Amino acid sequence: MIVVMKPGAGKEHVQHVVELVQEFGLKEHVIYGTDRTVVACLGDKRMADKGAIENAPMVERIVPILAPFKRASLEVKKERTQVEIGPNKFSMGGRQVGIIAGPCSVESRDQILRTAEAVKEAGCIGLRGGAFKPRTSPYSFQGMGEEGLKILAEARDQTGLAIVTEVVGVEQVDLCAHYADVLQIGARNMQHFPLLEAVGRIDKPVLLKRGMSAHLDEFLLAAEYIMNEGNDQVILCERGVRTFERYVRNTLPLAIVPELNNLTHLPVVVDPSHGTGHAHLVPAMCRAAVAVGADGVMLECHPDPEHAASDGAQSITPEGLKSMMATLKRIAEAIGRTL
Amino acid sequence: MIVVMKPGAGKEHVQHVVELVQEFGLKEHVIYGTDRTVVACLGDKRMADKGAIENAPMVERIVPILAPFKRASLEVKKERTQVEIGPNKFSMGGRQVGIIAGPCSVESRDQILRTAEAVKEAGCIGLRGGAFKPRTSPYSFQGMGEEGLKILAEARDQTGLAIVTEVVGVEQVDLCAHYADVLQIGARNMQHFPLLEAVGRIDKPVLLKRGMSAHLDEFLLAAEYIMNEGNDQVILCERGVRTFERYVRNTLPLAIVPELNNLTHLPVVVDPSHGTGHAHLVPAMCRAAVAVGADGVMLECHPDPEHAASDGAQSITPEGLKSMMATLKRIAEAIGRTL
Amino acid sequence: MIVVMKPGAGKEHVQHVVELVQEFGLKEHVIYGTDRTVVACLGDKRMADKGAIENAPMVERIVPILAPFKRASLEVKKERTQVEIGPNKFSMGGRQVGIIAGPCSVESRDQILRTAEAVKEAGCIGLRGGAFKPRTSPYSFQGMGEEGLKILAEARDQTGLAIVTEVVGVEQVDLCAHYADVLQIGARNMQHFPLLEAVGRIDKPVLLKRGMSAHLDEFLLAAEYIMNEGNDQVILCERGVRTFERYVRNTLPLAIVPELNNLTHLPVVVDPSHGTGHAHLVPAMCRAAVAVGADGVMLECHPDPEHAASDGAQSITPEGLKSMMATLKRIAEAIGRTL
Amino acid sequence: MIVVMKPGAGKEHVQHVVELVQEFGLKEHVIYGTDRTVVACLGDKRMADKGAIENAPMVERIVPILAPFKRASLEVKKERTQVEIGPNKFSMGGRQVGIIAGPCSVESRDQILRTAEAVKEAGCIGLRGGAFKPRTSPYSFQGMGEEGLKILAEARDQTGLAIVTEVVGVEQVDLCAHYADVLQIGARNMQHFPLLEAVGRIDKPVLLKRGMSAHLDEFLLAAEYIMNEGNDQVILCERGVRTFERYVRNTLPLAIVPELNNLTHLPVVVDPSHGTGHAHLVPAMCRAAVAVGADGVMLECHPDPEHAASDGAQSITPEGLKSMMATLKRIAEAIGRTL
Repeated sequence: MIVVMKPGAGKEHVQHVVELVQEFGLKEHVIYGTDRTVVACLGDKRMADKGAIENAPMVERIVPILAPFKRASLEVKKERTQVEIGPNKFSMGGRQVGIIAGPCSVESRDQILRTAEAVKEAGCIGLRGGAFKPRTSPYSFQGMGEEGLKILAEARDQTGLAIVTEVVGVEQVDLCAHYADVLQIGARNMQHFPLLEAVGRIDKPVLLKRGMSAHLDEFLLAAEYIMNEGNDQVILCERGVRTFERYVRNTLPLAIVPELNNLTHLPVVVDPSHGTGHAHLVPAMCRAAVAVGADGVMLECHPDPEHAASDGAQSITPEGLKSMMATLKRIAEAIGRTL
Repeated sequence: MIVVMKPGAGKEHVQHVVELVQEFGLKEHVIYGTDRTVVACLGDKRMADKGAIENAPMVERIVPILAPFKRASLEVKKERTQVEIGPNKFSMGGRQVGIIAGPCSVESRDQILRTAEAVKEAGCIGLRGGAFKPRTSPYSFQGMGEEGLKILAEARDQTGLAIVTEVVGVEQVDLCAHYADVLQIGARNMQHFPLLEAVGRIDKPVLLKRGMSAHLDEFLLAAEYIMNEGNDQVILCERGVRTFERYVRNTLPLAIVPELNNLTHLPVVVDPSHGTGHAHLVPAMCRAAVAVGADGVMLECHPDPEHAASDGAQSITPEGLKSMMATLKRIAEAIGRTL
Repeated sequence: MIVVMKPGAGKEHVQHVVELVQEFGLKEHVIYGTDRTVVACLGDKRMADKGAIENAPMVERIVPILAPFKRASLEVKKERTQVEIGPNKFSMGGRQVGIIAGPCSVESRDQILRTAEAVKEAGCIGLRGGAFKPRTSPYSFQGMGEEGLKILAEARDQTGLAIVTEVVGVEQVDLCAHYADVLQIGARNMQHFPLLEAVGRIDKPVLLKRGMSAHLDEFLLAAEYIMNEGNDQVILCERGVRTFERYVRNTLPLAIVPELNNLTHLPVVVDPSHGTGHAHLVPAMCRAAVAVGADGVMLECHPDPEHAASDGAQSITPEGLKSMMATLKRIAEAIGRTL
Repeated sequence: MIVVMKPGAGKEHVQHVVELVQEFGLKEHVIYGTDRTVVACLGDKRMADKGAIENAPMVERIVPILAPFKRASLEVKKERTQVEIGPNKFSMGGRQVGIIAGPCSVESRDQILRTAEAVKEAGCIGLRGGAFKPRTSPYSFQGMGEEGLKILAEARDQTGLAIVTEVVGVEQVDLCAHYADVLQIGARNMQHFPLLEAVGRIDKPVLLKRGMSAHLDEFLLAAEYIMNEGNDQVILCERGVRTFERYVRNTLPLAIVPELNNLTHLPVVVDPSHGTGHAHLVPAMCRAAVAVGADGVMLECHPDPEHAASDGAQSITPEGLKSMMATLKRIAEAIGRTL
């Protein structure tokens, strides 16, 4: 941490800051520049509230130097993490790119089994589907609940696909963990800390979506909440951020993939369905996601998008999925991976 | 809802959309323009997933006409809601502007009682303070829990101030409701739907903060979740949004206050502490909040900001609060209100 | 400037950075922390491209310490600048808050003279109106040109109001300066550097609007371009920024006013018409702008907004203006100013 | 255009809107819904200021139906435009993906000739380099001017590369057009309308960069300004937008590529150097740009980035370029293109 003093700060102001810094258990190093004095603080406390020093007289601002996350950091653990998912133990984070597809919501047994069959045949390794749905409006379809989870488990038994499903509350963690292979934390829940702690205490992979306006530090600290409880099987998922853009539901910032690869050892998956919000943009962004180096792609696929109970506008059809997969495979190979 | 067809859409495409519209229980009205055909859909279903129609062939986009919220809407309930809070039954949403101040976190009995005294003396009507803290990092101070709630209740008994405290999980709703006068839903939890439903089932005022990148519809639908469970005592709170700006922690968009007054009957409070993130900007933004027409202002005040366990950088001192209150009172009077 | 090295950076990497720093004419100061080495660089070059050092091996990032602007800085010139405008030499930046109103475009002599009369009577000190219009579409009304400027000058002669008009190209600077009292640089032209230099070479006040996604540094450096050519009569104007919000055309971030007052000696004006885009939000935001401490407010006012050639949606009527002015005056007095 | 009336709007309000609509030369079509009356307006005026109707009594909002651009629209011209650039007449917009590389600024003859040789050898088809630099700070290097243009022309003569250079003012259009093959309009100048008109009157390809917070409509209307003057050789370039993200200088929204392909016949190029701001993210985003379907990629490449006069932090080396090109070629082939 570096404390930048305002111009005109006197010895007494600097001394006051030095005392505050020492109270935090840090060692100070004062540098008198031509226009500014700065106090460099040595020691690794990563305490969140050193910001309080900002309120001391004649302090201009605080510049943090160390990243606030540890367990998720590539500095601390230098080998890439691979997370094994599903009955076939697919390694997310390995050389093979994993594609996960399926509807937004579980709507019926027939819908899921048909979709699972198509998803499997297309070469995907996972099936997504929501049984508990966090919906913006209380008047929207809220999901089939446990009945939906049972249908998903049946689909896994038939196809060997890994089941990815969202958990929206602490109460449902055990239930979802019982049926599913990967527990998804949705973007709206990225900082729902009791939920993060709850999935941190079970032994199942967690797919953590980035909040729609979360900074990278916040994203990795959310992963840290899970890992801090003992669960290291965390897959990060970028699903688009909210910006001024209007032709998309969200803006999908793919540069986050190489940047996360610089910062963390955790695998990274991209969701181009939420990341654009429109089915006609999904195939191109799936191609870009594979090319940029994502470990996996998760997308929405529905046998009859016009009648989907949710997210119809951003779902592609099984035929669309199939025709896209051959291209994704060629792109994966072009960058030295498989699919 | 209006369905805009792509240029070149044929009769068969329009007919297909008409059939989808009818399936939704709506009545269609087709208008053939020079360059585009549009299908106006009559009837009030406010169903969330008509977006699926966007996926029908030759559909360009869907334009919703009706707002998706009802109970929160000024169209449905034409009188302004006043929410009574605290032992002195202050009417939030009435002519008097209500100021709520206090530390981010409850840190000790002494800290709270001293602050409460000062806050009361300055003319505020409520005391804020967090006992359960949702913190970005798992390594940060997480709050005093029930012990903190007891201290807050004691401060209320001594001063008559209304106690506002955040509830972060469904599990703590009853506990917080037992001690506090107003339950705060934080920005990160604005779409934590099980929590919204839980506070919707109790008989205590709820202060709902807008998520840091939530659209107005999403904000009012979050209020709708609470009201839909039977609790109409909802106070909306703007606390700043995340933008590209860097000199502030959040951008405080005050135009939301008159816009919410157009859309909803619920009272609106502004939080300039989180809304800026820097103590030196708080007094000016409190003045602006009162002038723009907010029903209340909630801000962070700490007797020793340099040693605050959280949010020190954005907390003002009791002396700062006191000197500001006289100005706020004059501004309230300038617009025909009191304080 | 502080150079933060990556973890694991060796002596040779630090040495390489030290050499680069010295090439820039700066003096280095190396600090070896527990987890990171940082190289503090002393000396005031404020060169823009020290960022190149970011590309040196094992450098993580560069943290600038000094603000890049000088002439606009409150550090360099400690007294507030007051800019005299118009025939009555109104002091923008003095104790009195100055209100400037008028239509987006000059459309006719009658429209301007009628508006000027009403604006004067309401107590405003300036008349705005565009003769050269930068329009998003080439098919929109592009302004009356010099004819419009003559009408504005006539309005000044009749009322004593200061004339504020936008200049969109280097070619028109002299022409506009001949007729108007204040030259406005629009948001789209904030980084049109040849234009900034051109208005920097004349002796007329310049009202510089912030670009719709400009950082503060960029805004003040744009002012610096003008001042660097010799013209110190710069008035800064905040007109709203582009964010994810949809109920407004722009988000008006009023905290910029106290922040600019910390950073610069230049006067600050707020434009709530462009800052919201909707007439029904303008009066409330004018009140907030005065309360937050703006030196002036500039807004759009049209005698017949429904038939305005541009910006009708955000223009208020002369009656609306008049009824608002009394309130603004009371707010100005509440904070110790006049109007 | 559809005019949505407020709830409670009476016959007289609707009638008033109908009259306004007719004044605009449009034909109205009134639809009385259960909760809202809407007035659909038929006819293609695409006038920008129908927004004025928003100010009529009891009008809630205006929904535009037609896109405001024409010449750039795929509706109007159904074949894709290919723009021929450089001495070798490379077809931008054809099956082959075109890579353009070079330094931010022309700094010396040696730097450019060395870079051009490397760029050529790596398989690029164009050389970028700025002779007139629009710099955020007046104290930064402003470019070599005509001397720089001559060096670029020499590099073309030696290599056959197409020269792309930025033009920052109306005054320099002829000069730049004399030496260069493609005139670049920078992001800051996207709405510098006199400049757009000036490049619209010459017979050289124009590469138009999207403004850093421009909506798609605004971007295509900027192209329309150029085309409206007679120059159809417009290449669109996405270079990243400004968002809340901090690990990148800009957020590069690649979904714009397929969306532009839906809306316009013009070729689309992506700039991952400005689009990220950091050299270590450039190769991955170049791969993504090719995979998403861009017609070209433009990036910054400097033989000695640590000593670059500008944009060093985002420039890759000739070696980095070369090693990347083989991968880009394979990705292009994976999607049925060449490179």
